[in-house]
Amino acid sequence: MSEGAKRPLKVAVLGCGSVGSQVVRLLGEQAGDLEARVGAPVELVGVAVRRLDGPRDVEVPDGLLTTDALGLATRDDVDLVVEVIGGIEPARSLILGALENGASVVTANKALLAEDGPTLFEAAAKAGRDLYYEAAVAGAIPILRPLRESLAGDKVTRVLGIVNGTTNFILDKMDTSGAGFSEALEEAQELGYAEADPTADVEGFDAAAKAAILASLAFHSRVTAADVYREGISEVTAADVASAREMASVVKLLAICELSPQGVSARVHPAMIPRSHPLASVHGAYNAVFVESEAAGQLMFYGPGAGGSPTASAVLGDLVTVARNRLADTRGAGESAYADRAVLPMGETLTRYHVAIDVDDKAGVLAAIAQAFADHGVSLQTVRQQGRGEDAELVVVSHEARDAQLSATVRALRSMEIVREVTSVMRVEGGDE
Amino acid sequence: MSEGAKRPLKVAVLGCGSVGSQVVRLLGEQAGDLEARVGAPVELVGVAVRRLDGPRDVEVPDGLLTTDALGLATRDDVDLVVEVIGGIEPARSLILGALENGASVVTANKALLAEDGPTLFEAAAKAGRDLYYEAAVAGAIPILRPLRESLAGDKVTRVLGIVNGTTNFILDKMDTSGAGFSEALEEAQELGYAEADPTADVEGFDAAAKAAILASLAFHSRVTAADVYREGISEVTAADVASAREMASVVKLLAICELSPQGVSARVHPAMIPRSHPLASVHGAYNAVFVESEAAGQLMFYGPGAGGSPTASAVLGDLVTVARNRLADTRGAGESAYADRAVLPMGETLTRYHVAIDVDDKAGVLAAIAQAFADHGVSLQTVRQQGRGEDAELVVVSHEARDAQLSATVRALRSMEIVREVTSVMRVEGGDE
Repeated sequence: MSEGAKRPLKVAVLGCGSVGSQVVRLLGEQAGDLEARVGAPVELVGVAVRRLDGPRDVEVPDGLLTTDALGLATRDDVDLVVEVIGGIEPARSLILGALENGASVVTANKALLAEDGPTLFEAAAKAGRDLYYEAAVAGAIPILRPLRESLAGDKVTRVLGIVNGTTNFILDKMDTSGAGFSEALEEAQELGYAEADPTADVEGFDAAAKAAILASLAFHSRVTAADVYREGISEVTAADVASAREMASVVKLLAICELSPQGVSARVHPAMIPRSHPLASVHGAYNAVFVESEAAGQLMFYGPGAGGSPTASAVLGDLVTVARNRLADTRGAGESAYADRAVLPMGETLTRYHVAIDVDDKAGVLAAIAQAFADHGVSLQTVRQQGRGEDAELVVVSHEARDAQLSATVRALRSMEIVREVTSVMRVEGGDE
Repeated sequence: MSEGAKRPLKVAVLGCGSVGSQVVRLLGEQAGDLEARVGAPVELVGVAVRRLDGPRDVEVPDGLLTTDALGLATRDDVDLVVEVIGGIEPARSLILGALENGASVVTANKALLAEDGPTLFEAAAKAGRDLYYEAAVAGAIPILRPLRESLAGDKVTRVLGIVNGTTNFILDKMDTSGAGFSEALEEAQELGYAEADPTADVEGFDAAAKAAILASLAFHSRVTAADVYREGISEVTAADVASAREMASVVKLLAICELSPQGVSARVHPAMIPRSHPLASVHGAYNAVFVESEAAGQLMFYGPGAGGSPTASAVLGDLVTVARNRLADTRGAGESAYADRAVLPMGETLTRYHVAIDVDDKAGVLAAIAQAFADHGVSLQTVRQQGRGEDAELVVVSHEARDAQLSATVRALRSMEIVREVTSVMRVEGGDE
C-alpha cells in the first residue's frame, strides 16, 4: 500500500447518455464516500460527448465537456477512463488508446467485449492496467465479480441467465395476460421497455453478447458472440405460453452456458422452466443469473438489468476497485482464459424438447409418434394425450438428447401423415433430468 | 505484479469438521485450477484438529495433522491461515497470532466477527495482512464481497436477509403444511436441519451475528451482535402463519439492517412479507439477502446458507483473493468503519405492525380500537373485521411508527375491556409504506 499517495485520481468519462450522466452525477454526489473507500480523492477531469450543446440529464461542471474523446482518453494526467459510449467503434480505439497510455479502464460495453474481448484483455495485460466491466452483464447485478472472484476456488458447471429485461417483460406479459407476442411488444414499447427497433433485444443479440461474456468468465475459456447459438422470442406464441402453463412451467428467454466433458456451450433461446425454479419468479424487466457449481451448489443473483442509475452503480463499484489497485500499484484478477476448452456447436449440445402435436385421433397414433422419437435415438420422459377427435393433441417431453437429434425428430414428425400440425416446439430447462 | 514469485503459497487449515474437511478436499481436487487463478501453487502444509484419531470426512495427507493449532497458525513458513473452528476462543487467539506472525487469514467465524470484529480488523491492518470472511454470512452466497466492492460506489440503504436456514425451513414447513412450531422443529431435527439444542438458530442468535456483520459492511459502521435487537421464532403460531396467508403474506425470520438520517439499526425478528416479494419464494433451508441501494435499486443474492461444501466454496474464493494479494504484496479493501454512525435502539426504529384482536362484537368496537392506536400516535393502513358475534376478530395493519409506540399500543389493547385477546402481533416488512 502506497500510504503517501493522496494525490487525486483523475477520471475521464467517455459518453454522457443515460449511463454516463448517472456516472457523472454519482461521482459528484458520492465524492466523500468514494474518497474514503479508495483512499484518495476521485476527481472528474473530463466528459467526452458528441455535441457540446446536446441535452443532458446531469449538469456537467464548466470546462469539462469535450468532443475530443481520444484526446481525453489519452491525456497524460488521466488515471481512470470510463467508457460508456457503447458499440464497437470508436469505443474499441478509445479503450485501446487509454490502456496504451497507461490508464485503467472501466466499461459497460457488452457488444465490444463479446466481439473482441481478447484484444482488449491483451492490451490491458500488456499495459499492466485493469479492464473491468461488471456493468456489461445484467446491469447493477454483481455477477462478473462473484464468478471471477467469489467462485474462484469452485468449479462452475452451468449458468442460466435472464439477462435481457425487454424480452422478460414481454414474456411475463404474455404469461400473466395471455397476450400474443405483438401485443406484448407494443406495450413494452409504449412503456419504454423496448426500442422502436426491438431487434437487438427481441432476436436475442443482446443476450447472446452477455452469454459469451458469462461463458468466458465461468469456464475460463474464450467464447465470443459468434460462438453463441441464438434464437429470439418473436416466434413464441400464446399457444406456447399456454402449453407451458399446463406443464406448471413458464417461458423465459435464457442465456445458457454449460460445461461438459466435451467442452463448453453457450446458447440463447426461449425455454420452458418449471414455475418452482427460482428464475420463474423473475418478473417484468428484472434480470437474474442462476449459477450451478460443484461445491457451492445453486446460487442466484437478481436485480435491475438495465437503466442509467443501476448500470452507473456497477460502473462506480468497478471504479473504486480499479482506483484502489491503481493506488496500490497492482492489478486485479485479470482474464483467465487458461482452460482453452472447445466450444460445442448447437447440434452437439444436450437439450430436452417439449413438442405439442395436433394428430388424427386413431389407434396407434401414440405408438407411431413415440417410434419417430425412438428412430432418432431420443427417449421420452412423458407423452400425454389431450382432447379427442378433431381436437386430439399429443404433448411429448423428451429426455436429454443431442439438439441435432431432437430437431431432426421434429422435421420427421412434420412429414408424418397422421400429424396434422406440430403446434409448439420448445426446449425445456431447469428441471430434473 | 511480482512476476517471478512462483514459490508455493503455504496454507494452514485450523479445524477439520464439516467445513474444514471440504476445504482440504477442494485444495487437493482443485489444485491445478487454483494455481492458474492465483499465479502460484497453493500448498496445504498443515491441518489442526482436536484429536489425531478423530473421524473425518476427508483423507488428510500423511504428516499434515497436528493438535498444536497455535504452533501451526504461527509457523514462519505459513502464508495463509484458514480458521474454521468456530466460536470465540481459541479461534480469536489463533487468528490474532497468525496475523501478528505475518499470515493472511480467511475465516468463516460469524460469532467471533460479530462479537469482536474490530479487534481482528485492527490486527489485520496493523500487520498489513488480509482478513477475509465471506463464508461467515449466508454460506456460499457471495454477499460480503458485493456489499464491500460491487456497491462501493453506491449507497446501501437497507438489507433484508433470510440468513438462517434452520428457521427458514421451519417457517416454510409451517406455511406449506399448516404445522405448528414444535411439529415443524421436530421434522427439521429429524432431517438434520436443526440441532438437538436448536436455541442458537431458533432464538435468532445466529441470525443476529450475521446482521451485525451485514450492517457493519453495508453502512461502513461498527455494529456488534450486542447492538442487534433479537426475537426468535419459537413464539410464532400456526395462527400467525394463517393470518399472514390471509394477507397474501408469509412469515420469515428476517435480519434487517437500515440506514436512516438518525443512524443505523440492525434487528432480527419474524415478520410478514408479501408473497410477491422476492424473499417470499425462498424455500426450505435456502438463504437470501435482499439489498436496497440508492443507485442500483433492489438486488437479491440467493443460495445455500450452510453446509460443508458450499461454505468451503466461499472460503476457497476468499483464499484465492488473499493469495493473489499476497503475491502482489498488497491488501484487499479492508474494513471501512469511517462512517461511525449511531446505532438506534429498537424502540426508536420505525416499523409496522400487523395485529389480530379477538373482540366483543358490538357497535363502537372498531372506533375504540382505532382510537387506541391514535392515542399512541400510530396511524393505520387497514382495519378489517372478520366474523361476527363470538368469532369477531379485528385485523389491523399500521403505518410506520416508532417500535416503542407500537408495542405500547399493543400493551394498551391488552388491557381494554372490549378486547378478549390479542391473538397475533407481528411486524410487517417488504411492502409499500
